[in-house]
Amino acid sequence: MDILNALESNKEKIERWIEVYLPPEDEFPSLIHRAMRYSTLSGGKRLRAYLTLEANSIVNGKEENALPVAASIEMLHAYSLIHDDLPAMDDDDLRRGRATSHKKFGEDIAILAGDALCTFAWQLIADRLPPDKAIEVIKVLGRAVGTGGMIGGQVADMHWKDWDLKDSKMIRYIHSRKTAALISASIVCGGITGDADNRELEIFKKGGFYLGMEFQIVDDLLDETGDEVKVGKKLRKDIEEDKLTYPRLYGIDNSRIYAKKYAEKAINEFLKLDDKARYFIELAEYVLTREY
Amino acid sequence: MDILNALESNKEKIERWIEVYLPPEDEFPSLIHRAMRYSTLSGGKRLRAYLTLEANSIVNGKEENALPVAASIEMLHAYSLIHDDLPAMDDDDLRRGRATSHKKFGEDIAILAGDALCTFAWQLIADRLPPDKAIEVIKVLGRAVGTGGMIGGQVADMHWKDWDLKDSKMIRYIHSRKTAALISASIVCGGITGDADNRELEIFKKGGFYLGMEFQIVDDLLDETGDEVKVGKKLRKDIEEDKLTYPRLYGIDNSRIYAKKYAEKAINEFLKLDDKARYFIELAEYVLTREY
Repeated sequence: MDILNALESNKEKIERWIEVYLPPEDEFPSLIHRAMRYSTLSGGKRLRAYLTLEANSIVNGKEENALPVAASIEMLHAYSLIHDDLPAMDDDDLRRGRATSHKKFGEDIAILAGDALCTFAWQLIADRLPPDKAIEVIKVLGRAVGTGGMIGGQVADMHWKDWDLKDSKMIRYIHSRKTAALISASIVCGGITGDADNRELEIFKKGGFYLGMEFQIVDDLLDETGDEVKVGKKLRKDIEEDKLTYPRLYGIDNSRIYAKKYAEKAINEFLKLDDKARYFIELAEYVLTREY
Repeated sequence: MDILNALESNKEKIERWIEVYLPPEDEFPSLIHRAMRYSTLSGGKRLRAYLTLEANSIVNGKEENALPVAASIEMLHAYSLIHDDLPAMDDDDLRRGRATSHKKFGEDIAILAGDALCTFAWQLIADRLPPDKAIEVIKVLGRAVGTGGMIGGQVADMHWKDWDLKDSKMIRYIHSRKTAALISASIVCGGITGDADNRELEIFKKGGFYLGMEFQIVDDLLDETGDEVKVGKKLRKDIEEDKLTYPRLYGIDNSRIYAKKYAEKAINEFLKLDDKARYFIELAEYVLTREY
C-alpha cells in the first residue's frame, strides 16, 4: 500500500523537524528540555502530523507553513499522553515500549513537561506562520484540544459513570472529543496552512471526524484483541479501569462493523475531492487493519 | 494611596470579564468548567491583569483589546497555581483561604483544569484580538510562561539542589523566571495591545522585571514573617520544603534591602515615562508594604 510508504517517509521528516524546533537538551534547565524531547521524540505513527502535511499538500500549501503546525500537533498529542499516563489519571508505566514520563523523570517533571509542550506548541505556531494563518490554526486547534474537545473527552472518559447520559450517547461523546476532534483538526489545519476553500475545509473536517472515530474504535478493539509487544503498552486495561468502550457496549463483532461504517463515511467524504485525497482514502482502509 | 483604589476597581472589572469569557458552569462536561471557574474566580489581587490594563491605557490602547489579554494572563496564572499546588509539586491544601483545586475536585480534574485554562488563554487571545496584535502577545506571553520563563523557574525551584550553580545566581534565576517574567510580560502585553513604541516597550519590560523581582522577594519575606490569615495560605513552608529564598540566603534585613533596591530600579525605569506611569511608581512603593 502506498500509504504505508507515505506514513514512513513522513515519520522521518516530521521527527527531524521536531528535533529542530524543540529547545536543545543542554539548554538550561536541561531537565525539562530532556523530558519534553523524551516524550515527543519517542516514535509513534505520527499520524496527526501526516494528516496536516498531506492536507496542506492537497490544497497546494507551502510545506514551510505546514511543518511547524504538524510538529505543534505532535507536541500537543505528546503533552496529552504524558498527562493521561500520570498516576492520578490512567496510571501507566509504559508508552510506546518505553517508561512513561513520570516513571522516568518523576511526577513533578512529567506534569511540567506536559505543560511546557502545551505552551511551546502555540508559541511555535505564532513564531513560524504568517499572522492570519497562525490565528486561524490556533482557533481551530484550541477548540480541538480544549474542554469542547480533547480535555472534555478525557474528563468524560474518567467520570462517565457519574453522569446521567445514555451509554450510546456517552461513548460517542467520549470518542469524538478524546480522539476525533484532534484528528479532524489536524486535517483542517493543513487546509488552513494551504489554500483550502470553504468546501474543502468542510470535507476535511467531516472526513477527519469520521476517520478519528474509526481510529478510536480500532484502538478500543486493539486493547481487547491486540498484541502488547506490537502496541507497545499494557493492554486489557479498559476493562480493569472501567472505561466505556465500543467492545464493552456493542461487543467485538459489532464494534468492527462500526469501525467499518466510519471508514466508509470518511471515504465518501474524501471521494468528493476526487483523486486528490487518495491517500486519505487508503488511510481509512488501512486503519481497519492496523495492529498498533 | 490612589493605587489601592485603582487595584480595587480593576479587580471588580477583570473578574466580571473573566466571568464572561470562561465557559459557563452548566456547559457539558460541567465538572471541568466548574473547576476552571473555581480557581480563576477565587479572588486574589489581580495584579497582573491590572498591569496589562494600566500599560494599555498609558499608551492609549483600546480597552477592548487589553481586557481579553488581562483575563488570559489571570487564567495562565491560575493554571500555574493549580499545578504548583498538586501533591507531586508543592502539595498545598489551601490557596487564597480556600481548598486547592485537587482538594476540592480530585487530582485528575485539577491537572485537567490547569491544562484547560492554559489552552483556553491562548484561544481567547486568538479569538478576540486583531491577528497581528494577537500574535505579538502570544509570542511574548509564550516565552514568559514557557521553559525560558515560569516553567523553567518552577523546575529550578524544585531541583536547584541537584545543579551546580552558585546560590546567588540560582536565586536570581528562580525569581526572575518563576515570577518576574510573567509580571514583566503583563506590562509589555498591555503595551502591545496599545500603541507602545519600542522605547516604551523596553521601559515596560525592564520596569516590569524589577517590579517582579521586588514582588517575589516580598513574597519570600511574607512566607517568613506574614500572617497566615491575611495571606490566605499556609506559611513557613519554604524552610520546610527546602526552597531557596532571599531570606534564607541573605537574612530578613538584607532581603528587605534587596526588595527596596528592586523597587527603586523599577521606579527609575517608570520615571522615564514622566507622570504617565505614576500608578506603576506608586505600585512599586506599595508592594514593599504589602501584607498579603
